Amino acid sequence: MRYVLKVAYDGTNYGGWQIQNNAVTVQQLLQDAVKNVFGCEVNITASGRTDAGVHAAGQVCHFDADLTIPPQNIALALNTVLPDGISVLNSAAAPSGFDANHSAKQKTYAYRMYVSRMRNPLKERYSVNIPRMPDVQKMSIGAGIYCGEHDFKAYCASRSSVKTTVRTIYSCIVNLSESRGSADITVTVCGSGFLYNMVRTIAGTLLYLGEGKISLQDITRSLENPDRSLVGRTMPAKGLTLESVDYGTKIF
Amino acid sequence: MRYVLKVAYDGTNYGGWQIQNNAVTVQQLLQDAVKNVFGCEVNITASGRTDAGVHAAGQVCHFDADLTIPPQNIALALNTVLPDGISVLNSAAAPSGFDANHSAKQKTYAYRMYVSRMRNPLKERYSVNIPRMPDVQKMSIGAGIYCGEHDFKAYCASRSSVKTTVRTIYSCIVNLSESRGSADITVTVCGSGFLYNMVRTIAGTLLYLGEGKISLQDITRSLENPDRSLVGRTMPAKGLTLESVDYGTKIF
Repeated sequence: MRYVLKVAYDGTNYGGWQIQNNAVTVQQLLQDAVKNVFGCEVNITASGRTDAGVHAAGQVCHFDADLTIPPQNIALALNTVLPDGISVLNSAAAPSGFDANHSAKQKTYAYRMYVSRMRNPLKERYSVNIPRMPDVQKMSIGAGIYCGEHDFKAYCASRSSVKTTVRTIYSCIVNLSESRGSADITVTVCGSGFLYNMVRTIAGTLLYLGEGKISLQDITRSLENPDRSLVGRTMPAKGLTLESVDYGTKIF
Repeated sequence: MRYVLKVAYDGTNYGGWQIQNNAVTVQQLLQDAVKNVFGCEVNITASGRTDAGVHAAGQVCHFDADLTIPPQNIALALNTVLPDGISVLNSAAAPSGFDANHSAKQKTYAYRMYVSRMRNPLKERYSVNIPRMPDVQKMSIGAGIYCGEHDFKAYCASRSSVKTTVRTIYSCIVNLSESRGSADITVTVCGSGFLYNMVRTIAGTLLYLGEGKISLQDITRSLENPDRSLVGRTMPAKGLTLESVDYGTKIF
């Protein structure tokens, strides 16, 4: 039987999703928890990897096993042995033909920054400090340029080896809010899928735009002509959160 | 010369504001930083103590010293040696007759809770998990009862030894918002001053009200007749943040 989990994690102390030899990973901790609670070795497949330091509010993953407890109780059982940084929010029997990776229709990522001359310990864990207020209106206009189907080759880490660098963005929104005495800027991107480092580079490019380092035209050009010099820096992992994964059907 | 600082800290790993023998405290780390950077031993006085585990977005404190650098540069200098959990947001020369404790006109605290059947690692650091949605409208009405001058004896830890347990609350607001897939409930209390554990007990009492464990009348009664059985539990420290201290004059 196939089970599907919705998982939240604080990526600060983990080496990302995927199992590796020299770091504690989310996949490893979840597989260990399944073994620990249910006594079976499983391989857990996520909607996609997240990098070291990246957070997730709604990562989705699946595994195959024959368990006797009701599927909706798996979450509670796994949480009894998982460390504080990971929590299974929901569990269910997977719909017929479901695959957490291949069935994903769209993913939503949020990139968080806060504006403050000094670093703020209450914001540092999940967002990145920028010292001066950028032009958020311009950033919002720039974000609109990403909507639609484009070649994001300029936004992709060079070590990536994907078949195509064309991706569809359904929405890209810049939001300005205020909390605990300083301004928060959140870039929320929803798309069919993302290249390695793509959201962090979109956030960095919109920040460059807001800081006047590049123009709106540079963003348009960066999607026509994959030139890394037209895009901003890749922002730090800690500002990024995988917010949700949508499968076009209700799972939990 | 007297200097005034605005300080933010993540209280998770600290034994509160006040210096003590067997814990790392915020006062100690700040005094050490002044000694480290400026070579002088100072005693730093805050607007008031915060307990172990309580956070601050805008604690205010003062110290006396003869420094040669411009007062507004002290913040940056201290931040070069302070640990990640503490940051000086602003520094200035104190107005004439200023005392961080005695000159404080009002303080604002926020108590944060989030509603989720499972704990959420992205929310656990600064808010407290409550499993089911309480009646937030009723909590808002209850919050209004606290406004004005009242005897908060029932809301005060018994080990407290203050002259009077009468305090004035200027506003008490319950806010419901949504982030990262779950509801956040914030109780924000602004008052002339607070007794030991008072905000955490107000938050716990409003939660009891929202859960139907006590009535609006119980809250009214708890202010007339200091009976601990009429109030809710004292909520955990980690949900509490000292948001700001107001001196009735612009300091920074």
